[in-house]
Amino acid sequence: MISSEIQLRVNYYETDVMGYVHHSNYIRYFETARTEMFRKFGISYAAMEAGGIMMPVIRTECRYIQPAKFDDLLTICVVMKKMPDTRMNLNYEISNEEKKKICEGSVELVFINSRSRRPCKAPENVVKILQAHFV
Amino acid sequence: MISSEIQLRVNYYETDVMGYVHHSNYIRYFETARTEMFRKFGISYAAMEAGGIMMPVIRTECRYIQPAKFDDLLTICVVMKKMPDTRMNLNYEISNEEKKKICEGSVELVFINSRSRRPCKAPENVVKILQAHFV
Amino acid sequence: MISSEIQLRVNYYETDVMGYVHHSNYIRYFETARTEMFRKFGISYAAMEAGGIMMPVIRTECRYIQPAKFDDLLTICVVMKKMPDTRMNLNYEISNEEKKKICEGSVELVFINSRSRRPCKAPENVVKILQAHFV
Amino acid sequence: MISSEIQLRVNYYETDVMGYVHHSNYIRYFETARTEMFRKFGISYAAMEAGGIMMPVIRTECRYIQPAKFDDLLTICVVMKKMPDTRMNLNYEISNEEKKKICEGSVELVFINSRSRRPCKAPENVVKILQAHFV
Repeated sequence: MISSEIQLRVNYYETDVMGYVHHSNYIRYFETARTEMFRKFGISYAAMEAGGIMMPVIRTECRYIQPAKFDDLLTICVVMKKMPDTRMNLNYEISNEEKKKICEGSVELVFINSRSRRPCKAPENVVKILQAHFV
Repeated sequence: MISSEIQLRVNYYETDVMGYVHHSNYIRYFETARTEMFRKFGISYAAMEAGGIMMPVIRTECRYIQPAKFDDLLTICVVMKKMPDTRMNLNYEISNEEKKKICEGSVELVFINSRSRRPCKAPENVVKILQAHFV
Repeated sequence: MISSEIQLRVNYYETDVMGYVHHSNYIRYFETARTEMFRKFGISYAAMEAGGIMMPVIRTECRYIQPAKFDDLLTICVVMKKMPDTRMNLNYEISNEEKKKICEGSVELVFINSRSRRPCKAPENVVKILQAHFV
Repeated sequence: MISSEIQLRVNYYETDVMGYVHHSNYIRYFETARTEMFRKFGISYAAMEAGGIMMPVIRTECRYIQPAKFDDLLTICVVMKKMPDTRMNLNYEISNEEKKKICEGSVELVFINSRSRRPCKAPENVVKILQAHFV
């Protein structure tokens, strides 16, 4: 298992007239947490993409438990339960400062060769790094 | 079963550097299709909210099959398979002009009394209208 | 002068906790109106971009007069007062169904050669078409 | 003069098919920088709003100089050149890690009494705090 977390403060433009964070934005928070997890382990998603590997999302799922509001400081926790092959599965949990769970979800991504636009294995250097942190 | 569909053209600001619609935006397209289905049956979501009923989303799920691009004309089809009680379940399918399926997903919403912020039954007038169109 | 208008309905996800459309979204509405003006005259912005011309925005400006709300049906009017050379200037006005002005603004874009990433003249076919509609 | 700056990393969902940050997002970065400037001085925008004062934006303007890309670490600098009365004027500059200027702009906001929805003076405690930091 590998896990990582980031903190994000809810922006005004992410709220809606109901007074809460619009549900689509948690999917975006998941993405930010994923990029930062990669960075923490020395993997640059931007560099990987420049190197010819893209990672489109092929499935998302989210259960919304309690609303978050403007200015809330959220913790986004991402967990990788098994090593990726051509696909990578990640689980997420978002909580607020009172440790109340806001939502939980999962995202599945696929490694794609940018030229062929065909699925491919996770790059060796990425696998090696993730394996070194896998517990 | 009740079904409804709308057409939306992909905006430039909805794409990302990968060249496709960012995956979070399909969740937003689902919302637009839902509001328009209500309008088609003479139900104004805005009026319902002004009348004290909110409908927060409590679950979303989406499987991404093929990417959509800037300027694509998408068809968003929404299907209600069973009548709502305190919750409403909707299924979605998005396809492009070549009839290729872009993604499919589902959204679960709950009727909430705005004052008490507690779940409540779907308003009687809404139920009556939906029942009249249910086949 | 060339002018064009479109109608757009405010989406829920475009509102904020203040209860109104977030001010950044009008800039996005401007873009949609611009793309549709092009389409109306038989110019596909997507095709132009595929053909090696990009049009990044180099200046935006907007004065917000009255708020728009969820579900409002807005009219976005775009006006081109002079023919483009390497730059294109557009003026915008957004109004609601009661003909109240919501905001007004302007956007300046530059024609860029995608390969050299240098400014270039507006493509001849685009100029010809715009000239034919210029009054 | 009062000034403040924050750093933000460009999210994937903020880019567009041109490969750069969509121009509408800089307006959103301005907002985040503004909220954080307030927080730095001990003013909570959320608390002010809860206390009955809203600050809608009445004018924005931005000149885009150079594109920012996914994963760029941006510095958003906000400057208040004169003390607010019923309105507040702020100037912005965004630069990247190579100290290249990405864009510059300004935003004008108005203090509004939430109940009457009429303009009002900046709250006394806010004025006092800002004055203490004004140089």
